[in-house]
Amino acid sequence: MSDATPLSHLEQQLNFLREIDQLKSVVRKSPLIDQSRKENSAEHSWHLAMYALILQDSANTTVNIDRVIKMLLLHDVVEIDAGDHPIHETGDTSAQEAAELQAAERIFGLLPEAQGEELKALWLEFEAAETDDAQFAKSLDRLQPLIHNVATQGGTWVEGQVTEPQVQTRYGQVIVKGSKALWQHAKQLVAQHFKSQQ
Amino acid sequence: MSDATPLSHLEQQLNFLREIDQLKSVVRKSPLIDQSRKENSAEHSWHLAMYALILQDSANTTVNIDRVIKMLLLHDVVEIDAGDHPIHETGDTSAQEAAELQAAERIFGLLPEAQGEELKALWLEFEAAETDDAQFAKSLDRLQPLIHNVATQGGTWVEGQVTEPQVQTRYGQVIVKGSKALWQHAKQLVAQHFKSQQ
Ligand SMILES: [Ca+2]
Repeated sequence: MSDATPLSHLEQQLNFLREIDQLKSVVRKSPLIDQSRKENSAEHSWHLAMYALILQDSANTTVNIDRVIKMLLLHDVVEIDAGDHPIHETGDTSAQEAAELQAAERIFGLLPEAQGEELKALWLEFEAAETDDAQFAKSLDRLQPLIHNVATQGGTWVEGQVTEPQVQTRYGQVIVKGSKALWQHAKQLVAQHFKSQQ
Repeated sequence: MSDATPLSHLEQQLNFLREIDQLKSVVRKSPLIDQSRKENSAEHSWHLAMYALILQDSANTTVNIDRVIKMLLLHDVVEIDAGDHPIHETGDTSAQEAAELQAAERIFGLLPEAQGEELKALWLEFEAAETDDAQFAKSLDRLQPLIHNVATQGGTWVEGQVTEPQVQTRYGQVIVKGSKALWQHAKQLVAQHFKSQQ
């Protein structure tokens, strides 16, 4: 195919779907529950979509669960260019935000224009964490690694020497905004975990 | 907790979400596009949900894309017990179907009853491949490994010595039921691939 031939609508869509295959190679800090290896961002996104499907009745408000699932499916695709940045990391967050925005422009830009704009808007809504749907999505993104850490004798908290008050702040403040019920339960799991470590 | 204490609604839901973490360790025959390793069934399920989100305008009929996405998210969880069985495999399919049904009973049975029944019904609808939503979901489940095989100089077709007529039958018949447009495009990719192998 010559460079002069414009891609069809479907070719653009398939190029995007081939491109995002790379999310399967972005490795996160969180372990699988069986501790056989670290989780990647593609399977993490699948797991979060399942969290949304299963836990929708725990949201603080009536959320549009289909939008929440879509947000969670695409929330990490920017990591293909910008990498995964765990919440316990410190550093220049504005540089990271700029890199992620540039990644969103490039990756969603592979799609037919209207579709790419729609998905980029959904990603921006997730990032802004202002709507009910985004706040519930964010709370699940924070809950899932907490569940994995508790199930693996501390997971990333051990490596990062994270304390119980730090967990309360870094996880609790985000989870509670989307779901008081989930945080109430998770807080107990966290307390039991740190008690068992003493 | 004593055995006599019944699990709460939320504890049942979280047990299910912890259990399905194992889908990340079910390895498929299909390669990642960069050929660094084989794909697992959890990240495959994520990729298919993205296929549905992106390619919904190619379905033969008006499908309920939110139901299609949910079907694809959960279509492979039975593999945790029953394993992955590639389409080129021959053998006792009725024994396999029985094992998958038993897996569905056990795994969806971890959930609160009404929720488990609802998701099991969605899985059975996918398996039956009779509704428009299920036929479109099935067509994407067949298209994605085809795209990966074409992108990796033949992928599982090389290993299995699969011929072009076999691809036309094993992939085409399923894809065309959900999307004539996707099969028309995929058929060309397949023809180009086998021509390049001569
Ligand atoms: Ca992330």
